Amino acid sequence: MGRPAWKEARATIQKLLSADEPTLRDNASLREKALRPMSEVQMLLPVVIGDYTDFYASMYHSKNAGTIFRGPADAIPRNWFHLPIGYHGRASSVVISGTDIIRPKGQGRPIGNSPPYFGPTQKMDFELEMAAIVGPGNELGKPVDVNRAADHIFGLVLMNDWSARDIQAWEYVPLGPFLGKSFGTTVSPWIVTLDALEPFTCDALKQDPHPLPYLAENKHMNYDIHLEVCIKPAGEQQPSVVTKSNLNHLYWTITQQLAHHTVNGCNLRPGDLLGTGTISGPDPESLGCLLELTLNGQKPLTLTNGSERKFLEDGDEVIMTACCKGEGYNVGFGTCTGKILPAIP
Amino acid sequence: MGRPAWKEARATIQKLLSADEPTLRDNASLREKALRPMSEVQMLLPVVIGDYTDFYASMYHSKNAGTIFRGPADAIPRNWFHLPIGYHGRASSVVISGTDIIRPKGQGRPIGNSPPYFGPTQKMDFELEMAAIVGPGNELGKPVDVNRAADHIFGLVLMNDWSARDIQAWEYVPLGPFLGKSFGTTVSPWIVTLDALEPFTCDALKQDPHPLPYLAENKHMNYDIHLEVCIKPAGEQQPSVVTKSNLNHLYWTITQQLAHHTVNGCNLRPGDLLGTGTISGPDPESLGCLLELTLNGQKPLTLTNGSERKFLEDGDEVIMTACCKGEGYNVGFGTCTGKILPAIP
Ligand SMILES: [Ca+2]
Ligand SMILES: [Ca+2]
Ligand SMILES: [Mg+2]
Ligand SMILES: [Mg+2]
Ligand code: NI
Repeated sequence: MGRPAWKEARATIQKLLSADEPTLRDNASLREKALRPMSEVQMLLPVVIGDYTDFYASMYHSKNAGTIFRGPADAIPRNWFHLPIGYHGRASSVVISGTDIIRPKGQGRPIGNSPPYFGPTQKMDFELEMAAIVGPGNELGKPVDVNRAADHIFGLVLMNDWSARDIQAWEYVPLGPFLGKSFGTTVSPWIVTLDALEPFTCDALKQDPHPLPYLAENKHMNYDIHLEVCIKPAGEQQPSVVTKSNLNHLYWTITQQLAHHTVNGCNLRPGDLLGTGTISGPDPESLGCLLELTLNGQKPLTLTNGSERKFLEDGDEVIMTACCKGEGYNVGFGTCTGKILPAIP
Repeated sequence: MGRPAWKEARATIQKLLSADEPTLRDNASLREKALRPMSEVQMLLPVVIGDYTDFYASMYHSKNAGTIFRGPADAIPRNWFHLPIGYHGRASSVVISGTDIIRPKGQGRPIGNSPPYFGPTQKMDFELEMAAIVGPGNELGKPVDVNRAADHIFGLVLMNDWSARDIQAWEYVPLGPFLGKSFGTTVSPWIVTLDALEPFTCDALKQDPHPLPYLAENKHMNYDIHLEVCIKPAGEQQPSVVTKSNLNHLYWTITQQLAHHTVNGCNLRPGDLLGTGTISGPDPESLGCLLELTLNGQKPLTLTNGSERKFLEDGDEVIMTACCKGEGYNVGFGTCTGKILPAIP
């Protein structure tokens, strides 16, 4: 049905919920049927995800992570400025906010010539991301024009791409991340439509070199969405804010990502999830994962309870929030949370 | 239901089809209802594929492809001998044998400092693979023991992992293959169960170094499955055989692949597709893709009609077959075919 139907549904719901409209306001029993307290309901994944793709679209993240994995000379590969680099992720292990995450086991990169480490990951990390949910898909063999790409995006969610850095570092050459990622990816419970985000559009970052025609947008726009990550250690009441970032730090926009994804004819299906990649900004307080925030564990963070973190510990809860600040109102994404459980013996 | 139910269903069908059994033999109208000529039916994908994973388990292929992409010094990365390297593939574009494949467009690796090429791929390739279809899955967080892994595999299909080498070469650092693969992957129409393959088990290749305990199998077995790839140019009647290989050339077995896939707790679901990676053998006639057969286009192949091939041309049909040779009988996989159509203008 596409965007016109979404707009109509949104307008209808907004009208029903407004103070001027009597339908729900003056009918207590209908109101009781239609509205449930959030504390009483269990949120589930909002869509069936056919395929999940994760991009790598923040230049700051790519530079920082690349320096740690490959050194400063090869930090950002040359292709990065010509195309939105991405990889296929694991759809089966995408879970809804609030789902516990079991610390994965695996092989970690050996030191020198010793055999690889095997056991629970020693470098458990989060990645602050947002993700586009595909609305109408495209047929196999029929690319989507970059200037039409927004019509294929139903809306956005917050996403935590949990990452085991020791597993990832050992396995990712030459075919990319696999078990260092596939043990779990958490998304926030409702999808905020692009229509709801329209008041928060902003210019996207300038791109140099100029993108190829299939990636050149008439309107190269992004959204001003404030992002925050907290860590709440087991037994603590007070979460510690560890990063504050913004979707507008992305170099490649979500519409460029979608157009690139389909330029070879690859078909998207409704419900597909397109992660932005870790959203790091230029400042030390705006880095989107512990790998960057602690320089791969070399520079621990201090939480408000005084404890230190190189990477996540068992019992830590990671809480991500996203918010657009309008005049007199906010648009929120709910929280994207998950707690680390100890590895299975 | 798992393996006992599959065994029972297989035995029942075999009995119904045997010459000694009157149920179908002596009932013409029932036979007409139950059996249809293959020429009259259209085969569809045998399962709904939730996630598709592709491994990289032939040492010969990994060495040859690695030498071409990265040079002889870095051909096989050190991790390769410790774990079955794999990556997440694209499930939406897995198609059934006989589906045409449109030549994809994309960015190709630039020469020197020139800007990247954009247009139809100039290095269209096939990859000869087989793939396991997952039967019962596993819960998120619960790894599958390598000695139980066979109980999670319903059976095998033939697979052609179509690959655009120029796109792949430009995009794959650092997150792996993406658009160079996701335009299409073809599978054969029926699944041959592991029970049907049991008479064709053989010793798997010796592994050095010895695999970590979670990958060490009590019975380190493979299957003797003869594989063949033909190219049939447009307008020709006669296909040219371009490679003859065998599943038994794999270094990592399909059960090791499945155990590795789940060691971090990643959940598999029924219908998931686990590709073996390109099955190349040690001989020049047993290489599983044109990248290897033509040394990345440097050494063209000559087909039986006298024409040369560096990579696939529009109108070429690629025909893969797989066969187990028993005493007085064969177990066949049908064909896995696809024809290259010109890129969309
Ligand atoms: Ca990520
Ligand atoms: Ca492959
Ligand atoms: Mg993840
Ligand atoms: Mg493919
Ligand atoms: Ni044989």
